[in-house]
Amino acid sequence: MNKQQLHIIKIGGNVIDNSESLHHFLKDFTALDGYKILVHGGGKVATQLSETLGIEPKLVDGRRITDIETLRVVTMVYGGLINKNIVAQLQRFGTNAIGLTGADGNFIRTKKRPVKTIDYGFVGDIDKKSIDPKNIGRLLDAGFTPVFCAITHDGEGQLLNTNADTIASAMAVALAKLYDTTLIYCFEKKGVLHDINDEESVIRDIDPERYEELKKQQIIHSGMLPKLDNAFTAINCGVKAVIIGRSDDLGQLKNKQPFGTKLSLS
Amino acid sequence: MNKQQLHIIKIGGNVIDNSESLHHFLKDFTALDGYKILVHGGGKVATQLSETLGIEPKLVDGRRITDIETLRVVTMVYGGLINKNIVAQLQRFGTNAIGLTGADGNFIRTKKRPVKTIDYGFVGDIDKKSIDPKNIGRLLDAGFTPVFCAITHDGEGQLLNTNADTIASAMAVALAKLYDTTLIYCFEKKGVLHDINDEESVIRDIDPERYEELKKQQIIHSGMLPKLDNAFTAINCGVKAVIIGRSDDLGQLKNKQPFGTKLSLS
Repeated sequence: MNKQQLHIIKIGGNVIDNSESLHHFLKDFTALDGYKILVHGGGKVATQLSETLGIEPKLVDGRRITDIETLRVVTMVYGGLINKNIVAQLQRFGTNAIGLTGADGNFIRTKKRPVKTIDYGFVGDIDKKSIDPKNIGRLLDAGFTPVFCAITHDGEGQLLNTNADTIASAMAVALAKLYDTTLIYCFEKKGVLHDINDEESVIRDIDPERYEELKKQQIIHSGMLPKLDNAFTAINCGVKAVIIGRSDDLGQLKNKQPFGTKLSLS
Repeated sequence: MNKQQLHIIKIGGNVIDNSESLHHFLKDFTALDGYKILVHGGGKVATQLSETLGIEPKLVDGRRITDIETLRVVTMVYGGLINKNIVAQLQRFGTNAIGLTGADGNFIRTKKRPVKTIDYGFVGDIDKKSIDPKNIGRLLDAGFTPVFCAITHDGEGQLLNTNADTIASAMAVALAKLYDTTLIYCFEKKGVLHDINDEESVIRDIDPERYEELKKQQIIHSGMLPKLDNAFTAINCGVKAVIIGRSDDLGQLKNKQPFGTKLSLS
């Protein structure tokens, strides 16, 4: 049986903070065929609002802590301001978007991160079994395009701050059971580069064998390795492909042009 | 053919600002059978945030103006903070809630209010034809309970601030085409009172004939008249009944006890 195609696309602050890039991306997102889910991260606005409100950023060992005041800010900014403005723009372009947190529809439950050496505050780690592909499927089948911000809940009434990359990949793995799922991470580069100083040196395809070679030759910039490790974990869990590329180039996917770096089993 | 029962319930600041009342109400809301939609207004938080951010409330001839800064605040507070916390609490109680603005799913389009003597700013008047009962019905049929805040969009990418009472009534009229629809306005009194100083003097039932008598005898407090006129307009457009009562008493509806004042054709 042929599965329905699904693209899950994650964008971050570099797209959200630039209204021109965002506009361009949302148009290209609309043009993409098949089922689609957008996951967006934060951006500068939450930091700016926190500063204006006099909330000091709390860092422990270089890690950001989500205290109750910061949770309020991110719920307002990610769940309200950013999410609803993206939805309104997508509607303008003709995508029947619906803006969500993980609390909505009980789509993503998380557990407050246990305190070991660091108390991260109101941060949630995804309970992977909580993502029911049929539940999200009902929304997709009803003709809606989900737009997720990086807020989740614990099922006990508590909202929690959660990493957007992790949401995108957990959702891709869960939905791969029902859909032919491609996960796309948009970031500031054109893809995984052979030469970090040459934006045109994009490696187009990486399979596990090639990945081992590239690692051995120390060709891939070390900052990229955790991203790629996570991508292959998702692929090993059934996600068809993970593409890492620049949001401005998303239109190339629609036009069957090379877009970013594609990671897959073959 | 028997239509499916639908309750549309509107709560305002007096419930939202009181965490105990809200908790109580959301439990009773969860217990209610059949399809349900919640519409919530604002509350003090938006005003407080505006004050903290140094946004001066703008009033022209006593009417509040939504400038661009205020629109940002209400999008954050209504669409993010309040809406998503209500959703998380409803999920905790077992309601599969999904928090929405009128932009989500293109459920409610509005037109920016034209400038006549007053420029209200980013305020939207509902385009009644934009509310497609089948579109909202797809969400209800898929097992979700919509929770609307009072933000809408114009279909051109612009979010707009809209009166929550009007959203509830426009939605009830549109959905009455498909569902056996009861519209419930929660406010601070037990219902429409015979004697404004006697909270127990609730008038239980009002039909159009009785309404004319009560008006003639000047029994109803003048402040209630616009609310009741609007209620009868909704009823004349197909809404089965409009109930005006106290959120704390909603549980009585489930228990078939008298709840508030019921307005209907007979």
